[in-house]
Amino acid sequence: MSKVLVTGHKSPDTDSVSSAIVYAYLKNKQGFDAYPVRLGEVNKETAYALDYFNVEAPALADDEAKQDVEEVILVDHNERQQSIDDIENFKIIEVIDHHRIANFETRDPLYYRAEPVGCTATILLKLFRESHIDIPKDLAGLMLSAILSDSLLFKSPTCTDEDIKSALELANIAGVDTEAYGMEMLKAGADTSGKTIDE
Amino acid sequence: MSKVLVTGHKSPDTDSVSSAIVYAYLKNKQGFDAYPVRLGEVNKETAYALDYFNVEAPALADDEAKQDVEEVILVDHNERQQSIDDIENFKIIEVIDHHRIANFETRDPLYYRAEPVGCTATILLKLFRESHIDIPKDLAGLMLSAILSDSLLFKSPTCTDEDIKSALELANIAGVDTEAYGMEMLKAGADTSGKTIDE
Ligand SMILES: [Mn+2]
Ligand SMILES: [Mn+2]
Ligand SMILES: [Mn+2]
Ligand SMILES: [Mn+2]
Repeated sequence: MSKVLVTGHKSPDTDSVSSAIVYAYLKNKQGFDAYPVRLGEVNKETAYALDYFNVEAPALADDEAKQDVEEVILVDHNERQQSIDDIENFKIIEVIDHHRIANFETRDPLYYRAEPVGCTATILLKLFRESHIDIPKDLAGLMLSAILSDSLLFKSPTCTDEDIKSALELANIAGVDTEAYGMEMLKAGADTSGKTIDE
Repeated sequence: MSKVLVTGHKSPDTDSVSSAIVYAYLKNKQGFDAYPVRLGEVNKETAYALDYFNVEAPALADDEAKQDVEEVILVDHNERQQSIDDIENFKIIEVIDHHRIANFETRDPLYYRAEPVGCTATILLKLFRESHIDIPKDLAGLMLSAILSDSLLFKSPTCTDEDIKSALELANIAGVDTEAYGMEMLKAGADTSGKTIDE
């Protein structure tokens, strides 16, 4: 079985980084040889979440990470311009996303799971349930972080009841207080000290 | 709640017609006001299946069917040129399909469920299970017909183990012998008497 990369979008946010890590974990449990990657620097908010739950950041999708890779899975995006630069060199075997579909095309049938919810992690929770695979505590923490980030602590208009329900379920597994943790995480992300010009 | 049309592709085959009928049934059970439609004449194979299981053909997607409709669900296709001619006048809220994705774009997030299996009906069976909704005997018969048609009685290279497993489960609900029924259905479709030049 060949290596499969799982990647979020460029300028990765907490959902893109967390969902790549979490979905790669699920795919490995299902027998794939899956590796999470990222398409840019980890931002401060995401760094806070990774540090809090003691999870390593995915590797950058550089030439080394892409060596011998033929297949990729996209999470938290589908548009070509948001994806790996040389996406046409890979077969996209799956997409898990919560955005509109645009500038996306495949040569072959694939597994595409999009739902009109506020966060990819909300869909991933469903996929864990459907596969009857348990979510480790640290990964539940990352999924919670993704929902709190995308929904701005449930205040975003894109946040659905399902996102809130999922977040509370994940907070329970992760063993954190949603409000307190969410505030700290967003605060860490809003800290502008040391930001690069790009940000 | 406004009317939602559920449509398969142009030159409808048994999967497109059956999946429109079956998924409209499921959406109605979920509280939608959904109506199956078709984008062309019912072919002989499909007519045999509808007649066998005593189910009415969907209405043609004409101006009357489209009146007051703002939302559509696509089954068994996604490409714009295979869909309703004035597809840009509608909001596509869902797609259930087993083909590659191409020439497809939405303005808003949607529910998109594609799986690399041999037939849309195989995915629909999963959706019924996930919703804990029972499949009526006649609709199980149509779903079986769709799988037997798309898979050419399990002989097509696109046929997966999941299609076969699903077909046997559906045959059990429908109370028919898969082989015998499938042969009769394919034979009815192969009958060239009275075919139009287009076919
Ligand atoms: Mn994102
Ligand atoms: Mn997201
Ligand atoms: Mn078809
Ligand atoms: Mn089909």
